[in-house]
Amino acid sequence: MFVHTVFFWLKHPEKQADRDALRAGIETLRDIEHMDAAYIGVPADTRRPVIDHSYDFSITFVFADQHAHDAYQEHPMHLKFVENCAHLWERVRVYDAVGH
Amino acid sequence: MFVHTVFFWLKHPEKQADRDALRAGIETLRDIEHMDAAYIGVPADTRRPVIDHSYDFSITFVFADQHAHDAYQEHPMHLKFVENCAHLWERVRVYDAVGH
Repeated sequence: MFVHTVFFWLKHPEKQADRDALRAGIETLRDIEHMDAAYIGVPADTRRPVIDHSYDFSITFVFADQHAHDAYQEHPMHLKFVENCAHLWERVRVYDAVGH
Repeated sequence: MFVHTVFFWLKHPEKQADRDALRAGIETLRDIEHMDAAYIGVPADTRRPVIDHSYDFSITFVFADQHAHDAYQEHPMHLKFVENCAHLWERVRVYDAVGH
């Protein structure tokens, strides 16, 4: 099992059009066939000192293994998303985990 | 849908006994009945500038909603895990996301 988690911080979080565009872009990733489960989210209302709720969008994509993840990374729809949307984010932070 | 993601950094990553103890503690969380999916991992071999692979363990627990997540937080097995294992970690970082 391979869990690919990404947090996105918008360059202009005050611009609703940017927010909408990034969300729309992220939603296209869900259709890529290599993943077993896909979760797209925004920060919950939970607040504790250990919680980072500063991001704008999160994705949690679960793959069978790293091979499936690697195929996703190279998938034309993923590459197109990066090409179309990279200008919208200030920062992304990725956590890749293998386990069960 | 509510995704609760936690990254753990060991206080003494060089101590295998600490690593084993934290992993064993994390594994007990999987049995808590409030979650729909549970993934426990360690950093993958992927390396890109945007990837943070500095953590020791990750959990990605998926709940139907925040109510289920809140019940998990208060579950005796979760509280016991924190009581037993908190001394093992230097830092935890939590990301809670709501979405679909």
